Amino acid sequence: MHPFTKHFADSVSALGETRLIAEIRRWLGDVSPPAPFGIGDDCAVLPPNPRRQLVTTDPVIYGRHFDDTVTPRATGEMLLKRNLSDLAAMGARPTAAVIALALDPRVRTRWLEQFYRGLAAAARRFAVPVVGGDVAQGDGFLGAFLTLFGEAAGPRIVPRTGARPDDWIYVTGTLGGSRLGRHWRFTPRLAEGEWLARRREVRAMMDVSDGLAKDLYALTPRGAWPALAADAIPISRAARLHARRTGRTPLHHALCDGEDYELVLAVAGRADRALLGRAWRRAFPRLRLTCIGRFVAAGKTAAGSIDLQTFHGYEHLR
Amino acid sequence: MHPFTKHFADSVSALGETRLIAEIRRWLGDVSPPAPFGIGDDCAVLPPNPRRQLVTTDPVIYGRHFDDTVTPRATGEMLLKRNLSDLAAMGARPTAAVIALALDPRVRTRWLEQFYRGLAAAARRFAVPVVGGDVAQGDGFLGAFLTLFGEAAGPRIVPRTGARPDDWIYVTGTLGGSRLGRHWRFTPRLAEGEWLARRREVRAMMDVSDGLAKDLYALTPRGAWPALAADAIPISRAARLHARRTGRTPLHHALCDGEDYELVLAVAGRADRALLGRAWRRAFPRLRLTCIGRFVAAGKTAAGSIDLQTFHGYEHLR
Repeated sequence: MHPFTKHFADSVSALGETRLIAEIRRWLGDVSPPAPFGIGDDCAVLPPNPRRQLVTTDPVIYGRHFDDTVTPRATGEMLLKRNLSDLAAMGARPTAAVIALALDPRVRTRWLEQFYRGLAAAARRFAVPVVGGDVAQGDGFLGAFLTLFGEAAGPRIVPRTGARPDDWIYVTGTLGGSRLGRHWRFTPRLAEGEWLARRREVRAMMDVSDGLAKDLYALTPRGAWPALAADAIPISRAARLHARRTGRTPLHHALCDGEDYELVLAVAGRADRALLGRAWRRAFPRLRLTCIGRFVAAGKTAAGSIDLQTFHGYEHLR
Repeated sequence: MHPFTKHFADSVSALGETRLIAEIRRWLGDVSPPAPFGIGDDCAVLPPNPRRQLVTTDPVIYGRHFDDTVTPRATGEMLLKRNLSDLAAMGARPTAAVIALALDPRVRTRWLEQFYRGLAAAARRFAVPVVGGDVAQGDGFLGAFLTLFGEAAGPRIVPRTGARPDDWIYVTGTLGGSRLGRHWRFTPRLAEGEWLARRREVRAMMDVSDGLAKDLYALTPRGAWPALAADAIPISRAARLHARRTGRTPLHHALCDGEDYELVLAVAGRADRALLGRAWRRAFPRLRLTCIGRFVAAGKTAAGSIDLQTFHGYEHLR
């Protein structure tokens, strides 16, 4: 559905701000708690929480993160799930969300309704109350900016930093070809992230959003580089399909496409990897956890490893 | 300064995303703590806090909340202060902020630097660490979406709801004419909000952002209406100046302009108002606290009171 309308009567402008906010609360339904915990006061009030709090923010913008080919429902779901993936990447779970909208007055009310109903469905599924927000006018623009709060799910959270030379590199699921649909159909790895954060051999973790070729640098310890085995990379079916159309290799798509929303992690070099593998398969029998390489001291060569510098992940602002 | 440039070398696109984020951290300086408390991981991590947490979100958008006549520094300050005003309105104080940017690749790097330096100056002044954010591309658009966290400053927070018929209506400072400069020069009433929240006779409170004529309805208890005395409204000098240009009355500007960022509150009908006034003047000798009327049971008439329905505050999405 195209988000803009030429008919005033169908637009959010015809609805006006006060009624629009009332409608948003109706569309959100039971994931919108009453004030002061939810929408309706100067601030939303969250209950005291003895755990460490986490915060992350990610938007969806028309023409950038979605277009007319993605349904408004899927767009709303995607907005929440992108942010959930960031919590998953530290081993945390969600507690509340706020959402700031910037929209052209000609945005179609029905588009926005479906968007909020999709967001509400995902919020219900992952038990995230939507406690507040803001609606502002942005001419020729349509974007939704979500800020998500979470709490440490277990005794620790796992940062990006913490990997050491000789640590193994693992990735969940398969990579590449997200543009064929996974960029909005994915499932944030919340249960997996929480499980991995409880394993002491997991030293560092992040999610793959801009493509492994770009994101992996943030996980790489100083004085080391990631030696990846080309034949170990779990390439998705979508990456293979996409490669047939683009003429690039499936490996290229697996490393560069981004929006995989899988977890990539560093496992201590001396860990019992067989034990980790068995425990993982018992916990998540339907999702792969693959060792794709190792961080090696800079200067060392590793036979058969990929030269990551020849691949590029997604570059923003280009 | 116009935020967009025709010269590629001066644009954020020339800088690229990775260097831009490094620059943002540099511009923020000491208000940007290191990861995992600050920018640089999948989420920011906040320390545990035994108090109730508050959340609010407000943006600044080019063409809507600022234009070429407002300096980028003032725009950055304004973004934080708008959100601080929402915390003040409940008697809370800030703990952390995250900021999501959406910007055209042609945005001038120097504009953005000055914007962040202004934001940082305000963050330093009000002791708010900027712990995270996101940078996304929005074609032809420039907006910054800030989400602010806070905590209850005293034993209670003051909601918008809670006023009763016969309660007095008070307002801090003076109202109107914000477009002459106060919409970005204002001081959020954090100390005043905290002080008022400790007074038990204060039953409900909010900040004036869309104009008293519109905002006051949110404070009005069911079955009552606000009887305001026209000659009691504290009209600002800017409202009088602005009225000379527009041909409207100064009262109109005081009630309708919006962006005053003063506090409006309900005080229990049986409160000792002389005592409240004396205590206020001792605490805040340089700021007025004015009783402007009373909530009266619907149907009752109040001689000399303003018919608020003839005034309109700022309407979004029009």
